[in-house]
Amino acid sequence: MTGQRVVLEVLGGARSFPPPIWMMRQAGRYLPEYRQTREKAGGFLDLCYTPDLAVEVTLQPIRRFGFDASILFSDILVVPHALGRDLAFEEGRGPVMTPIRTDEIAKLDPSRAGEFLEPVIETVRRLRGELPDETTLLGFCGAPWTVATYMIAGHGTPDQAPARLFLYREPERMKALLELLADVSADYLVRQIEAGADAVQIFDSWSGVLDEASFVKCCVRPVARMVERIRKLHPHTPIIGFPKGAGSLYAGYREATGVTALGLDWSVPLSQAQGLQAGGAVQGNLDPLRLVAGGSALDEGVNDILVRLGDGPLIFNLGHGIAPDTPVEHVERMVEIVRAGGLRS
Amino acid sequence: MTGQRVVLEVLGGARSFPPPIWMMRQAGRYLPEYRQTREKAGGFLDLCYTPDLAVEVTLQPIRRFGFDASILFSDILVVPHALGRDLAFEEGRGPVMTPIRTDEIAKLDPSRAGEFLEPVIETVRRLRGELPDETTLLGFCGAPWTVATYMIAGHGTPDQAPARLFLYREPERMKALLELLADVSADYLVRQIEAGADAVQIFDSWSGVLDEASFVKCCVRPVARMVERIRKLHPHTPIIGFPKGAGSLYAGYREATGVTALGLDWSVPLSQAQGLQAGGAVQGNLDPLRLVAGGSALDEGVNDILVRLGDGPLIFNLGHGIAPDTPVEHVERMVEIVRAGGLRS
Repeated sequence: MTGQRVVLEVLGGARSFPPPIWMMRQAGRYLPEYRQTREKAGGFLDLCYTPDLAVEVTLQPIRRFGFDASILFSDILVVPHALGRDLAFEEGRGPVMTPIRTDEIAKLDPSRAGEFLEPVIETVRRLRGELPDETTLLGFCGAPWTVATYMIAGHGTPDQAPARLFLYREPERMKALLELLADVSADYLVRQIEAGADAVQIFDSWSGVLDEASFVKCCVRPVARMVERIRKLHPHTPIIGFPKGAGSLYAGYREATGVTALGLDWSVPLSQAQGLQAGGAVQGNLDPLRLVAGGSALDEGVNDILVRLGDGPLIFNLGHGIAPDTPVEHVERMVEIVRAGGLRS
Repeated sequence: MTGQRVVLEVLGGARSFPPPIWMMRQAGRYLPEYRQTREKAGGFLDLCYTPDLAVEVTLQPIRRFGFDASILFSDILVVPHALGRDLAFEEGRGPVMTPIRTDEIAKLDPSRAGEFLEPVIETVRRLRGELPDETTLLGFCGAPWTVATYMIAGHGTPDQAPARLFLYREPERMKALLELLADVSADYLVRQIEAGADAVQIFDSWSGVLDEASFVKCCVRPVARMVERIRKLHPHTPIIGFPKGAGSLYAGYREATGVTALGLDWSVPLSQAQGLQAGGAVQGNLDPLRLVAGGSALDEGVNDILVRLGDGPLIFNLGHGIAPDTPVEHVERMVEIVRAGGLRS
């Protein structure tokens, strides 16, 4: 059965052309059916913690586009939420938390995180029952650094200055926070795998704001720690690492962390991506704004990726989550080109 | 005389150790004397357009720290201002302009830009007279893409989505805008050189948000066009390119644009920087937040750069402008370590 899941085959290093396709944030506001469910649900977090609703929105893009992978609908900040930090999603502002004080880090209590996150695990369990056999089910979580940036700043910032200053001023406490997050997040992914996730993705959305020495400390080591902890129990489950914005530091990231595959943001040049593909599967990396714009910007962007990366193990995806104002017809057009293996000349 | 200007020697490819040092935005709010002059001046733009005041703040960091280079005090947005676009600096919000409509691009009139920018040129002229002989005087402007992102969005944005969408939807009009900005900006730098600037820097602060194909169109080609236009008149004046956030695309940028030296942001790994140094001088790249934090984060950051890049042509600098809340004593400490050639062991 698993042999039919083409995303899994590609994660294992096989080439499959036309490549399998899914989109980050594919269950999202660009879909009218998502907006409808969201309205019924109340808040965004209700959607995350109510298995009926989370299953429904996770399945919506699969029904509509037949994507090859389905990613659990949830949010990276459920992990600090499970550690007892407050969390709210404010319309138009994104997530808001009370910034953690440095002296609160030692008091974070992971003992009830598992119970707290049980509704998410239940969602994974039900999804595996509902998805077509050939659809790969992906679990996910945020990487420790990215989760820490929100815990420290209390909200999104353009350059994560609060977390960088915290790192520079209190390196030992930052290390403790990252290690705690790594362990809790790894255990969370293990439970997702045991509930039916075929593979997992670790989102390090803010790894691009660090210098090399800090990247090693904050991004590489914590993710390596997670991979090691997961592999002890599930040595064969593929793990996709997505160090968004890592630039030149993408080179060596797979080897240093042990992740199976690399998610590439849209700023990764396709020539560099070809080099990275020599080490295993890559996933990406269309600029989501090409999908918003449509027309030749979309056609050329999709085709370039197929031409330049189609000879190796490739999972077609965006270089970041789909934008809420993306026209559904542009997604249809993208899927059409990818399924055709490129533009017809 | 020029032979004493060590920054110029390094830009020419020579190694000088301990390396020369200056800081991006070194005339800035972290200095009490700057804040004092700024208060007298009224608005930020008054400072830019009043040679007496602009000369004064440009000289302040030279007097205090004896930096090896002095950079003209001005702003990258004086160029669209000179093209007739409105511009204001709002406290705490940064620059604000009326977003340009696509149909206004063809109507931009460069004929009065030269006259409009005369006060800036006068500032350069006076500076060369006032600076110590051994201090290299740097002129600068924004790169066409970065200037265009502000003209299109009307303000700073985290990912320049408005300009990227503009590019994808109206590629011909974007090309026209970038070419116009390239020509006006090149002429502006030529006048700075003729007024006494020893070298010039082109700031492309937002080159990191583009995919490879767009980077070539928006960052590489317009800067190459500028370099060609400047070199026709001043073939020997060094030009520093600073494609902030370009990541892997730093490789090849010097060759493709023709710039003499590369300004490196703090996310450039020192191993990559060493490779780039093989092609000529590099400048950078301390994380400005290490300078805010001080302590071992500062000491180690400075020392790493000296150890890893000190064997080649290096101009020590930050990887971005100095932050307003940087303690002056931390700048003193940084200068002390650099002048000593590293930490004493």
